[in-house]
Amino acid sequence: MSEERRRGTLIIIGGGEERDPRGHREILKEVARHVHGGKLVLATVASHRPEGYFDEYQKGFADLDVGELVELYVEDRCEASDREKLAVLDDAAGIFFSGGDQLRITSQIGDTGIEAKVRALFERGGLIAGTSAGASVMSDTMLVKGTSRETHRIGDLHMSPGLGLVRNVIIDQHFAERGRFGRLLGAVAHNPRVLGLGIDEDTAAILEGDRFRVIGSGAVYVVDGSQVSHCNLAEARPERVLSMHDVKVHVLGTGDQFDLKSRSAIPASADD
Amino acid sequence: MSEERRRGTLIIIGGGEERDPRGHREILKEVARHVHGGKLVLATVASHRPEGYFDEYQKGFADLDVGELVELYVEDRCEASDREKLAVLDDAAGIFFSGGDQLRITSQIGDTGIEAKVRALFERGGLIAGTSAGASVMSDTMLVKGTSRETHRIGDLHMSPGLGLVRNVIIDQHFAERGRFGRLLGAVAHNPRVLGLGIDEDTAAILEGDRFRVIGSGAVYVVDGSQVSHCNLAEARPERVLSMHDVKVHVLGTGDQFDLKSRSAIPASADD
Repeated sequence: MSEERRRGTLIIIGGGEERDPRGHREILKEVARHVHGGKLVLATVASHRPEGYFDEYQKGFADLDVGELVELYVEDRCEASDREKLAVLDDAAGIFFSGGDQLRITSQIGDTGIEAKVRALFERGGLIAGTSAGASVMSDTMLVKGTSRETHRIGDLHMSPGLGLVRNVIIDQHFAERGRFGRLLGAVAHNPRVLGLGIDEDTAAILEGDRFRVIGSGAVYVVDGSQVSHCNLAEARPERVLSMHDVKVHVLGTGDQFDLKSRSAIPASADD
Repeated sequence: MSEERRRGTLIIIGGGEERDPRGHREILKEVARHVHGGKLVLATVASHRPEGYFDEYQKGFADLDVGELVELYVEDRCEASDREKLAVLDDAAGIFFSGGDQLRITSQIGDTGIEAKVRALFERGGLIAGTSAGASVMSDTMLVKGTSRETHRIGDLHMSPGLGLVRNVIIDQHFAERGRFGRLLGAVAHNPRVLGLGIDEDTAAILEGDRFRVIGSGAVYVVDGSQVSHCNLAEARPERVLSMHDVKVHVLGTGDQFDLKSRSAIPASADD
């Protein structure tokens, strides 16, 4: 999808967003604001055991401005062309991908009728939200596996084609909580064309056009490798740790914005 | 201590260095190389329960080039002026601070005869090694407490005066393993005059003059805040997360060097 055709909004969530009806639910409220009374499809495709997700989100969204919350689950790839399943997306204002395994999303719905409907929704200005695995899946190349809480070792990272709703970035989630700075640096080292986005739990990047804004209780980290002066990724043995010099990093808190095109951060205004 | 008077070598270890006599013991071997047959004092001051440390290091150093390994422990501050204890350091070639609580080191030996002897050893070209708490304590301001695995929240960080053997840096250890990127960024945000050094387990920075070299199985992260364009530390409420834009980060692997004065990284040579 070319940058030019991008019309909708992405809400990219780092996992663990507050869903308790008594809690602050900052992110769920933002999702509801974008749907404003319309239909929201909860895609639980990422999960092997989707039971419970729908209930939890139904409670979380109950008193918010969501007209209708409908679950979309695909047990097996053949169902992803099922007419009834496809029809669910026709009049949706938004879709919300819950967590699980990002490879389940892409292997089950990649290049199917459902994926086409998701793109169509996005192109007509709809909302695509995703948390955890549902966040990772949004980029053209996505992070699948890699050790947390360790400096990146060359060779210890699995990437895969994502849904491609946003280009030139790679997304990691549960970021500070799972100590994933090493692996995001590793991903960026592979090709500094991609900007690394590390999103904390209960935190989201709301992307419209080329700019995203941060909401939630944690931070969004941006890893920019465009000025890297040295990287041993291609030379060193797989068991060696990554060496990468002159990386630029931004830590973005609530209200901060970031422009993907100019790769620059914009501070929150005083009243944020 | 002024930069000009710095004569000895610092081996700053991120904790968890291989000590098993059957293991690679890269860092212990480096320590022994600097002591070359001389006396090494193992200072277990950081620990409330020093039992076992001496035994373990004795086994780890047994077949290496350490002439004599002697334990130095201070149960209480009044012992830090004890003649016998002080005499231990007179003919030492090096001192090795084991792990525990960095505040125990500074509160027990800060401004005592032992501290004076440690400085004297350093000024006559001796070795000061330290692991974990023993690493943190080397800078003039040291990190004491702060949440790991979380983006830094303003106000959630405790710093304290260290031994001041190296100026203008702040050291964190068990770095990638405990997800401490957030808190080191937080420390640097307080005053970008200090360069943040985050050292992984089983990894060390060997500092001589203004330059250090990396050895071990992990990485040393350098956080350079000198070009930070925005930081909310002084404005925001304590529960807010840190926002900091345009931070420079270096990930240094084995053989990489870093010059503290010019704040620049030097890649390892091909045969490292």
